[in-house]
Formats: sequence, structure tokens, C-alpha cells
Amino acid sequence: MPVKASPSKAVCLLSGGLDSSTCLALAKRQGFACYALTFDYGQRHRVELKAAHHVAEALGVEDHLVVRVGVNAFGGSALTDDIDVPKGREIAEMEKSIPVTYVPARNTIFLSYALAWAEVLGSADIFIGVNALDYSGYPDCRPEYIQAYEHMANLATRAGVEGATRLKIHTPLMDLTKAGIVKLAQTLAVPFGLTHSCYDPTPEGLPCGECDACLLRAKGFQEAGIADR
Amino acid sequence: MPVKASPSKAVCLLSGGLDSSTCLALAKRQGFACYALTFDYGQRHRVELKAAHHVAEALGVEDHLVVRVGVNAFGGSALTDDIDVPKGREIAEMEKSIPVTYVPARNTIFLSYALAWAEVLGSADIFIGVNALDYSGYPDCRPEYIQAYEHMANLATRAGVEGATRLKIHTPLMDLTKAGIVKLAQTLAVPFGLTHSCYDPTPEGLPCGECDACLLRAKGFQEAGIADR
Repeated sequence: MPVKASPSKAVCLLSGGLDSSTCLALAKRQGFACYALTFDYGQRHRVELKAAHHVAEALGVEDHLVVRVGVNAFGGSALTDDIDVPKGREIAEMEKSIPVTYVPARNTIFLSYALAWAEVLGSADIFIGVNALDYSGYPDCRPEYIQAYEHMANLATRAGVEGATRLKIHTPLMDLTKAGIVKLAQTLAVPFGLTHSCYDPTPEGLPCGECDACLLRAKGFQEAGIADR
Repeated sequence: MPVKASPSKAVCLLSGGLDSSTCLALAKRQGFACYALTFDYGQRHRVELKAAHHVAEALGVEDHLVVRVGVNAFGGSALTDDIDVPKGREIAEMEKSIPVTYVPARNTIFLSYALAWAEVLGSADIFIGVNALDYSGYPDCRPEYIQAYEHMANLATRAGVEGATRLKIHTPLMDLTKAGIVKLAQTLAVPFGLTHSCYDPTPEGLPCGECDACLLRAKGFQEAGIADR
């Protein structure tokens, strides 16, 4: 992949999970100067925020912002409210319907903050690690959603009016399986041990091993034939 | 306008200004059960938040939420940063370019929170008081932007996937002049005295009379032949 002489800036959404960490590593590899953006939305899995900090540091970013957003003011998700995170589900079952871990309009809110930061930085590139396969049933991870968001974003901003640069939302993991993401992460030297995927960790911050995120991660590593450190 | 027997819920963005207050009054008149949503984004004109509270109370809403959003973390606007708010500009001059009072991606962020709340409430209707005429040059107030947002929003949510109800973003003020808005507000008995428009009020919360928002408001009342209380 070409490395640009004077690097363009990219805003990279970083949850601290495997997917967003891989996405950030790829943006770096593509030669972007990366600005990592993490959200504190009252998630029950607070250890995620710590993971994001360590990953951003390990991969080397220009800046890392943690923005507090009031998503949980509205309620409605097992990730923010006192609703049980489902355990031990089959992958096929996950794909059938939108799970209770869905946070209403989450990616829409996150991308909107990324858009604001990109505009202030003068960046025309946003990276988000969404994935349409093994995607756990979230509507805002689908390619048609991302395309619609990009179109809207280009009408929302100064650049859209003044016609400076066309903003692009990069979704390099969109068509990869979880195993494909694990393999890509390995070639990019993503520090697996620093990433965090579990929705419902133990008080010590260890993964539960039974939520959708843990099961998908385990399946990915197993199928990739790589050990999860 | 028809009043529904069992009212549908609508999320109404409410800044406390004349436009959003009129928009809320119109949603009420159309028979919606209104949920007002106000943002504390570190705006210098803090008196706006107080105005929103009084307007919501006077017009009668089901609920009024003030959500703190970290827009100002990114900087880049005279409404949040230590940049002078321009004074005494001609209307023609306002229309020529995007002003320094533009807050990056503001309406995109605000609508995204409205979308999240609408989804939790089971509402398919969002009201926003944007206006394409006399609009002070903001890209995210144009009809093509709103259309693109609505399309994206319908792909972002449970409703979009499960095909339950199509979400609509209502912009009843889009094609009105400021004078037209003032006249509409009067027929709806909007409490003018409770609303607040100024970007740069005095320490006592009085309007400066010289910023774009004050000048547009004054022009609207003058052309409508109505006194601004």
C-alpha cells in the first residue's frame, strides 16, 4: 500500500475492540496520520475505554479523544441499561434478529462526532470497523447504511457546500469474516492482548466468554488458526 | 389540521429560539405528543437553555430532555470558542458564505440524538426548525441535506431493518421567510417573550441586537408588522 509523503489526516473510530483496532492499524499502514476517537456512552463494559487507550498508544496516533455522549440518557440497550446481556447463543441465532445489545442510533451518533472532528481537522477520511458478515444483527453496520451516511455527510459540511474535498467513510472490514479480520490483524501486528471485545466482563475486566462478542471473537480466532493472547 | 384520537409521539428539537419554538408549537397543533430535546453544547449563549425550558413548559410537552454533547471538544466555531461573533452584517453578506458561527456537523449530531430518542420512544416523527431562506449560510439547513439524512436514518434503525414504520423528518419552516415564521408563530400563540435568538447576549441575558441572529429576527418581525415583545 502506498505511503504518502505528506500524510493525510484520518479520523478513526476506536472502541478498543479487535475490529476497530484492526481498522486503525490499517489506516496507519495506508499512510494516514490517525486521530482516534473513542466514546464513553455509559457502557457497562468500562474496560473497553482502557483498552482503547492502550491500543491507541501502542499503534501510535496523532491524538486520541474520548468524548462523553449521552446515549444512555434514552435507555433501550443491554449495553447501557440493566438488561441482561444474552449468553451462549448460536451464531445463526445472532443473525436472525437485532439483539438487545443494540444501542439505538449508536453508529449514527458516533459517525456524526467523527464528521465534526474531521471537519475541524480538515480531514476527508473517516475509518470505521463495521462488518456486514458475522455482524451480530446491527442495522447500522450494513453497507447501504454507510453509503447513505457518506452521501448525507457530504451535504452536511462546509466541504459539501464549498466543494473542497469529498468526504469518504472507509469500511475496510465490511466484507471480511471474523477469521479474515483476525488474519488481517496479525499481518498488521495488532496487539491482540490489548484489545477488548466482551460486552459483559467480570469485575476484574476479564471476558465472560459467553456473550455474542466473545463467541464471535473465539470463532474468528479458531477459524483463522491463530491463538488469542 | 386534524387532531388524532391517540396521539403519535414526535421528538422536537428545541433550542429556545423563535424557529424551534414555532416548530414545536406546530407539532403540538398537528396533534403530536411532543418530546422536546435540547442540547447543551457549551454554547456561549447559555441563556438559550433557560429559554428552551420556559418554552417547553409554556407550550406543554410530555417530556423535555437536555443532553450535554461534547461538540465543543473539537472547537472551530464562534458559538463555542473564543472567536468574535460578527456584528452588524448585511443580510446579503450573511448569505454569501458559511459564517464563523457555524458549528461543525451540529445538526447532524443533534438529529442523531433525536433519532436515538425516537427509536426508544417508538416515534416515527422528528421535527426540526431549519429554514432554507434567511438561513444564515449553514450547509446543514438545506432541503437536500434533510432528505439525505432521512434516507440514512431509515437504514440506521430497527424500524429500517424490520420495516415497521418509515421515519419522517418534518421541516415545516423550510420554505418560510423569517416574516412568515413570525406570522405563523403568532397564529400558534408562541410566547415570543420567552424565546431567545441572540448568539452573543449581554451578561444579563439580553440580546446584543447586532449579531446575525438578532438582525434576522428583527427583520422578520419588521416585515411581518408584528412587535417583538
